[in-house]
Amino acid sequence: MSDPIPAARYGERLSAARTALRGRGAGALLVGVGPQLRWLTGYAATPLERLTVLILPADGAATLLVPRLERDPAGRAPASAAGLLTIETWGETDDPTLAVAGALPRGADRGRLLLSDHLWALHVLRLQARFPSATFGLATEALRELRAVKDAEEIALLRAAGAAADRVMDAITAGRLVGRPEAEVAHEIRERLIDEGHDEADFAIVGSGPNSSSPHHEASDRVIGSGEALVLDLGGVRAGYCSDTTRTAWVTGGDPALAPTPEFRALYEVLQRAQAAAIAAVRPGVPCEGIDAAARTIISDAGWGAQFIHRTGHGIGLEVHEEPYIVAGNAEPLRVGHAFSIEPGIYLEGRYGARIEDIVVCAADGADALNRTSRDLRVVRGT
Amino acid sequence: MSDPIPAARYGERLSAARTALRGRGAGALLVGVGPQLRWLTGYAATPLERLTVLILPADGAATLLVPRLERDPAGRAPASAAGLLTIETWGETDDPTLAVAGALPRGADRGRLLLSDHLWALHVLRLQARFPSATFGLATEALRELRAVKDAEEIALLRAAGAAADRVMDAITAGRLVGRPEAEVAHEIRERLIDEGHDEADFAIVGSGPNSSSPHHEASDRVIGSGEALVLDLGGVRAGYCSDTTRTAWVTGGDPALAPTPEFRALYEVLQRAQAAAIAAVRPGVPCEGIDAAARTIISDAGWGAQFIHRTGHGIGLEVHEEPYIVAGNAEPLRVGHAFSIEPGIYLEGRYGARIEDIVVCAADGADALNRTSRDLRVVRGT
Repeated sequence: MSDPIPAARYGERLSAARTALRGRGAGALLVGVGPQLRWLTGYAATPLERLTVLILPADGAATLLVPRLERDPAGRAPASAAGLLTIETWGETDDPTLAVAGALPRGADRGRLLLSDHLWALHVLRLQARFPSATFGLATEALRELRAVKDAEEIALLRAAGAAADRVMDAITAGRLVGRPEAEVAHEIRERLIDEGHDEADFAIVGSGPNSSSPHHEASDRVIGSGEALVLDLGGVRAGYCSDTTRTAWVTGGDPALAPTPEFRALYEVLQRAQAAAIAAVRPGVPCEGIDAAARTIISDAGWGAQFIHRTGHGIGLEVHEEPYIVAGNAEPLRVGHAFSIEPGIYLEGRYGARIEDIVVCAADGADALNRTSRDLRVVRGT
Repeated sequence: MSDPIPAARYGERLSAARTALRGRGAGALLVGVGPQLRWLTGYAATPLERLTVLILPADGAATLLVPRLERDPAGRAPASAAGLLTIETWGETDDPTLAVAGALPRGADRGRLLLSDHLWALHVLRLQARFPSATFGLATEALRELRAVKDAEEIALLRAAGAAADRVMDAITAGRLVGRPEAEVAHEIRERLIDEGHDEADFAIVGSGPNSSSPHHEASDRVIGSGEALVLDLGGVRAGYCSDTTRTAWVTGGDPALAPTPEFRALYEVLQRAQAAAIAAVRPGVPCEGIDAAARTIISDAGWGAQFIHRTGHGIGLEVHEEPYIVAGNAEPLRVGHAFSIEPGIYLEGRYGARIEDIVVCAADGADALNRTSRDLRVVRGT
């Protein structure tokens, strides 16, 4: 349970966040339980109705306010143990927003306060009621670039998570598929992710036949048959950092007559070219929407633009979806250390679909792919 | 994956929520992914940055707005399949708050809108910006009593989850403890919860020796020794409904010289009387704070009031913590069907602590306990 992030890093992150706050004219961050709190302090907890919040003023000492009964675990968090913040507690019948007010520098309650993006409405509305003269924004305003650019330790953790996911993917597509319900294969995926060192096996999309045309299908009781497409999208959390990869197979059952149809092969060929083009387009300075366009142009030119119904990718780190988003309209330029998915898909509704997804890191000379298994269509017997 | 709640129930719940909205003068509920959405529609999804929201007007048709790529799973949700709502989708480059505006009845955007308690600040602030003339409250305002009073199916599900947790507790306290790190025992607890049919094994507090004095300790690398207290607090989710139970053991290692100290026995005797008194106080009409007081008075009279540092309990259902809260200041009267924990504790900082926790349902003639294993101090060899 030791933290793979060096303790000094939390001090650097808190300092950088303060600088970003000043740059945006905001008085303080109010960060509840979630990935932003973990990134700033190393403290991981479960979000609940009792308010836990880091009060980080642009100028002034940082306070981690926690329910009294959680003082000990909060005190063991890396940033607490390193003396980077002060723990304060509130009792069961106290109003914790009064303690937040006490921890803010004078006047900050009449300025701009940035709330963690995942903070529950329950807490948001109570803080808004406590600070009626403040204006509220999202912590992402200050933390976006800081968190999006991964440091060496974070990239190593993402790489390890990706390699583990690759091994699970290869094991699943090499194994028996025909005759098994999607949910059973999903269960095997989750078990293998845990066996590969994941702490959480959060998702296992197993979309067979027509279900492969629903991008966020999870896994149903449908039994996988021969002569059909199979989309596998799996991932979870390993040492705090996320994996997320997709491969598409075609299950023949060993019957040559049930090989991929020419249309499906054509569709997959376009998809694979699109995904490769998006990866090849990754360079520092290229806008995120340029990566999306690189994939989308190829798919649209082939006539399937209307069947590519989602963005090309999302950032990844402590969250499975975070900044930067690889989507039309996001002109943000890629920077060295940005980590994100590249996952175009083509979905012919009710018939079949395909997707290829890799996590890549933007390096000085282009994309550093964290998923390394074959991106070819996996034509498998599945028996 | 069939829903244990009859589909007709969702229609009743949506109707009751509409009535509650009218009673509070609110125009609509805006319910994102989470337990309130699941309760109203049966739709369970993962909260993410893409907005999924049920728009339930006090008067008018219900709309479930989802990202386009999640249309199929949303359409299979029980309330969707039963025709109780209309699915609408938004595309990757759309602003979903515009679609929310389109689904609201005329004028509702200048009235009161109730947001699901778990809705992320990310979505809250965007909705507030979209509807600057609205006032915002929490969905709990309308749903509190509806959700707090469990129906027969819900009680059966809570009972099954509780019985499973009881079996895990008994297996753990009957097994080897001495010489094992807390985290290893926690891992065994999680595995046993899954083996007992839980879908999620969310928490496994294993607090040995001094760690037993930290109520929300989880599980560390500390090795359990002989002659020390051990607090076990475990639970998770089974078929959507939560379990949560605590027992306290004293581990002797088989050495009579390491039996519980007289002080610990005295402390436990007081705690057990307090927990029994709180259970005995459960009756329809008794205020929640009265149950808290029943336990607290006994502990305070014995001189340990300052060491009982948390409320006596919390409601439980689709959430592990929900209404009603059994805490000083909550004058809400108990009603038949309220389900909640009764879990007093006494914690001597840095030395040891103890807690006893049962889930009970308020029945016409008193508490119906869903945890049935012995509440006596478990003096075990642990070898």
